[in-house]
Amino acid sequence: MEQITTARQRKSAAAQLEEGCRNNRPVTLSGMVHTLRAMGGVTFLVLRTGEEIVQCVCGRDTGSLCRECAVRVTGSARREERAPGGIELADAQVQCLSRPAAALPAPVFKQSLHLNLDTQLGLRPVALRSLREHSVFRIQAAVSQAFRDYLQSQGFVEIHTPKIVHAGAEGGSNIFRLDYFGRKAFLAQSPQFYKQTMVGVFERVFEIAPVFRAEKHSTPRHLNEYTSMDFEVGFIDSFYDIMALETGFLQAMTGLLARQCSGDLERLGAALPQVEQIPAVRFDWIKRAAAEKYGYRIRDPYDLEPEEEQAIGRYAQEEWGADFVFVTHYPSKKRPFYAMDDPEDPRYTLSFDLLFHGMEVTTGGQRIHDYATQVEKMRRRGMDPEAFQHYLMIHKHGMPPHGGLGAGLERLTMKLCGLDNIRKACLFPRDLGRLEP
Amino acid sequence: MEQITTARQRKSAAAQLEEGCRNNRPVTLSGMVHTLRAMGGVTFLVLRTGEEIVQCVCGRDTGSLCRECAVRVTGSARREERAPGGIELADAQVQCLSRPAAALPAPVFKQSLHLNLDTQLGLRPVALRSLREHSVFRIQAAVSQAFRDYLQSQGFVEIHTPKIVHAGAEGGSNIFRLDYFGRKAFLAQSPQFYKQTMVGVFERVFEIAPVFRAEKHSTPRHLNEYTSMDFEVGFIDSFYDIMALETGFLQAMTGLLARQCSGDLERLGAALPQVEQIPAVRFDWIKRAAAEKYGYRIRDPYDLEPEEEQAIGRYAQEEWGADFVFVTHYPSKKRPFYAMDDPEDPRYTLSFDLLFHGMEVTTGGQRIHDYATQVEKMRRRGMDPEAFQHYLMIHKHGMPPHGGLGAGLERLTMKLCGLDNIRKACLFPRDLGRLEP
Repeated sequence: MEQITTARQRKSAAAQLEEGCRNNRPVTLSGMVHTLRAMGGVTFLVLRTGEEIVQCVCGRDTGSLCRECAVRVTGSARREERAPGGIELADAQVQCLSRPAAALPAPVFKQSLHLNLDTQLGLRPVALRSLREHSVFRIQAAVSQAFRDYLQSQGFVEIHTPKIVHAGAEGGSNIFRLDYFGRKAFLAQSPQFYKQTMVGVFERVFEIAPVFRAEKHSTPRHLNEYTSMDFEVGFIDSFYDIMALETGFLQAMTGLLARQCSGDLERLGAALPQVEQIPAVRFDWIKRAAAEKYGYRIRDPYDLEPEEEQAIGRYAQEEWGADFVFVTHYPSKKRPFYAMDDPEDPRYTLSFDLLFHGMEVTTGGQRIHDYATQVEKMRRRGMDPEAFQHYLMIHKHGMPPHGGLGAGLERLTMKLCGLDNIRKACLFPRDLGRLEP
Repeated sequence: MEQITTARQRKSAAAQLEEGCRNNRPVTLSGMVHTLRAMGGVTFLVLRTGEEIVQCVCGRDTGSLCRECAVRVTGSARREERAPGGIELADAQVQCLSRPAAALPAPVFKQSLHLNLDTQLGLRPVALRSLREHSVFRIQAAVSQAFRDYLQSQGFVEIHTPKIVHAGAEGGSNIFRLDYFGRKAFLAQSPQFYKQTMVGVFERVFEIAPVFRAEKHSTPRHLNEYTSMDFEVGFIDSFYDIMALETGFLQAMTGLLARQCSGDLERLGAALPQVEQIPAVRFDWIKRAAAEKYGYRIRDPYDLEPEEEQAIGRYAQEEWGADFVFVTHYPSKKRPFYAMDDPEDPRYTLSFDLLFHGMEVTTGGQRIHDYATQVEKMRRRGMDPEAFQHYLMIHKHGMPPHGGLGAGLERLTMKLCGLDNIRKACLFPRDLGRLEP
């Protein structure tokens, strides 16, 4: 019998190099050989750790070493302005831990891959090793971390709800079907019913989890599986409370990105958006205002087409210098059956979308909490309340006024990083034609 | 145009009551009416907030107020030893925000529900409002928080990988199939391929996400959909590094539970497990030792049956006072094709399970990183490497020595809370017969 105790605290390569400079002791780092370049009497080995790249100066003869060898390098840390991070590893001795069987199919060590998107996605398992991709997905990790940290600081509890469900929350035909031990089942389009249910339990809940949409169109802004950041909150005074919480999250997010990902933002040439305050405008008003300003005709009075969202984003930028804009009071007709209608004009709902540089990144709003009101709205829509008895159980037995939102992690990442296609903001995207890698 | 600014920082009910006691100003709290009891000239209203219960003392006449009304209560905070938390809200004025349409179908306000499991699960949307359930799922939220916090402190990056996949990672027949725009697709049994892929990118990665197992047996320890906490780490010296990281997580977890959930543990009568150090024993050795000590015959020499896991848990408890035990070096035959065989005896793998009170809660180990070795092992198993070309791309183009683990969030929760059925450790369990709520 042996005893396992805890792992040693990990130090980043940067911290180890800094320490090595101070105490003049040899430093050992591990990582992948990112590039290898003979110059003068020495070889420059750029080591790619999980966190950064480190310049190592080795002797001329590095034997059979090549790119994407896994290595351990020992040397002396030395300040060197031209090295990434300002410190290099000199007189480096290299121990090779493993070797690739073949050279990389794409030049991931270059600034940009210059491959078409399809080829890039096909090579994704190794193309992700490029530093640009590192930056995109470090930023993505920070976004979800900020969402959780902010909500936890506001008393929200994390929940995990099922993705195999017996009925879709969002309705419509864009739902994946599967066989569940002989019964018909579906993949969750959103955690809507469950997060509302949990408001009756914890009052404030959140979940970050995959959702599935069997949408049959291929666009630069749709994925068939994406990561939804959801929260739901009870005892709201109005749906403005939900927008205020989202604003708080966005501020926490830009704060974390500034502290944690400034190098990544710089590499991508991305600037942090302005989130000090976010304008909120009514759907009808901004729809008309943008159409008038940019001189186009409104085709669908009940919803926003992608081009209209872009025009509204431009309007918000030009008129108010705003990166984000809340569009409120969407028509009831285009919102789900659980959306609360505006008592002052029930053709509209107490709901909103958040646009980021002209693209919807969040949908939210107040929900119906009263049993009779909810049953009545379902009946008006030709739905059978009996089929939703587990969901309606919460309204029947008492719910506080509540609402919430769902934000798309990939869309936020895409806009933060200034990417032109949502597939680039997803590690392994799923679309109409793409089921692997 | 309006401007949305950030939400006010939320204060817990406990903090507001404490403040009210100090500054003698009225306190307003919102929550659900948990219980209502007339006594002498007053009515005791127990308010259930998302976080705690608060005793409010109202006048005799509370009108049509009933259980599960959503209310806002204003009163003066007053120290009162007999009240939960030591402070009550006296002279309370109640504003009713919403009313239930029907009384609760189960006495959720009682200490224990005394319902059979099936009935309880059918009533789950409202049965979760019981304080015992609050405690179980607060503990669950703390477990996943500790997993993330610990790994982030060790340089791990969070990833989100697809759940709709073109091939199963674990093989076998227990995989859900679905139609993906006319193509055959599956639900991920684990993020195995993807997390290994991401070791080539970030070296250290983790994910907390649902996984799906179409297992056709109904037991107290299996769910067909559960939350898997996965990590994968590169540049390990041996698979003992992985066990050391898990030990570090478990220590972070008990630390967080002690700070954040002591009241919940107390309510459930649960004691925190010992995680200072965790014994590790070889599969063959402990299998024989437990069979000898408890006098039973070994039936399957290659795997552990549930009864054997229980016996090993008892052995670890009796011999070493251990709540957890690592069982190492599982037979190669019963481990997946990506498991690294022990070079000293390739009938065994460099792998482990972690048992908690006699139940497997984690499976982990070192993976094959060399391309030729992996292709060769697949061939020996009659697998076609061509079918796994996207996965093998990472081995082909270079991978460091690496390994990782997957831990079941519900199983950990079940054992921590001392529950007798895993369904009680899942908000909305999916099993052979249960697809709703």
